[in-house]
Amino acid sequence: MPKLVNHEERRRQLAEAAWRIIRREGMEGVSVRSVAQEAGMSLGSLRHYFDTQSELLAFSMKMVSDQVNARMEALEFTDHPVEDIERFIGELMPLDDERHTEAEVWLAFSVKAVTVPELQKLQEEVHSALYEGFTKAIYYLAARGMLKEGVDQRAEAMKLHALVDGLVLHHTTRPEQVSREDIAGLVSSHVRSLLQ
Amino acid sequence: MPKLVNHEERRRQLAEAAWRIIRREGMEGVSVRSVAQEAGMSLGSLRHYFDTQSELLAFSMKMVSDQVNARMEALEFTDHPVEDIERFIGELMPLDDERHTEAEVWLAFSVKAVTVPELQKLQEEVHSALYEGFTKAIYYLAARGMLKEGVDQRAEAMKLHALVDGLVLHHTTRPEQVSREDIAGLVSSHVRSLLQ
Repeated sequence: MPKLVNHEERRRQLAEAAWRIIRREGMEGVSVRSVAQEAGMSLGSLRHYFDTQSELLAFSMKMVSDQVNARMEALEFTDHPVEDIERFIGELMPLDDERHTEAEVWLAFSVKAVTVPELQKLQEEVHSALYEGFTKAIYYLAARGMLKEGVDQRAEAMKLHALVDGLVLHHTTRPEQVSREDIAGLVSSHVRSLLQ
Repeated sequence: MPKLVNHEERRRQLAEAAWRIIRREGMEGVSVRSVAQEAGMSLGSLRHYFDTQSELLAFSMKMVSDQVNARMEALEFTDHPVEDIERFIGELMPLDDERHTEAEVWLAFSVKAVTVPELQKLQEEVHSALYEGFTKAIYYLAARGMLKEGVDQRAEAMKLHALVDGLVLHHTTRPEQVSREDIAGLVSSHVRSLLQ
């Protein structure tokens, strides 16, 4: 049987089953048992793919960031740096159903990470990678002489990162108060406020 | 016995026991049983104070916002509107251990709220109250003629709210990457960037 099915594909199916449970019941609904059931698989079969619940959780969490990364890497640079940066940031924001799921699930994993070392490590890596991405975005504008004079680049990278995460948090938890248009518009106007 | 102990005080002790479990084990460690044990009380005694687990959770969550509100209400306005606003926002931020606990516990409740209607309602109320607070802060500056011309007050209130929550999230989950000084400094410089 293992020869007929794609091992990685099965792992992804199990991770997606975990995402569905998280969205429906919250993180505390997730167990190896409930994930196996959600994926229509026996607990014994699940054990072929994940030895422990932490391993399943870490893989499911990593799949969120891999998915976002893949989209970011597919982005191409153009002659319009501001729009490039908006598209880069847009991949992180819940602007369609796929990204909304990612944001909701990522948030649940981030909170879970406080008590699960494997997830904490991943969250730390992703936080650092994103901070680096925001830093590059600010440098990108600076290198083209587009940035306002006297801008503190480290502070602005940290601020843009926090603003984006705050907006994602607000739209994900309170979509009727903070809309998709609000968050896209605020990021866009913020990036433009940095230009000279 | 009920005559000798203060009913509200007991409820608060149980809520604080729930906070400790959340900080130590995450939300999924919380049950009426674990909270009773943490508070050194029998399950039967806990039932005198809370009929259901949801009621216990809602009370514990509300206690966070009540505590923050009480501090905010105690703030007095001075002749320095910018410093007043910084103090108001400071009460929401994890700038000391008490506020760090509040931020960590609030975050866990916010994620739990996605699947628990009682918590969702409270989270919605608090989000609205805070948004109103940020709106008032912007108006406060506008009414004194301190705000830059052409500032979109609704957008700036929403942005300030998201920035503060994003910074709280980053410091709470990644204190070694985003320090207390960083978040206090970024809020301060942001508020000042709105002034003319």
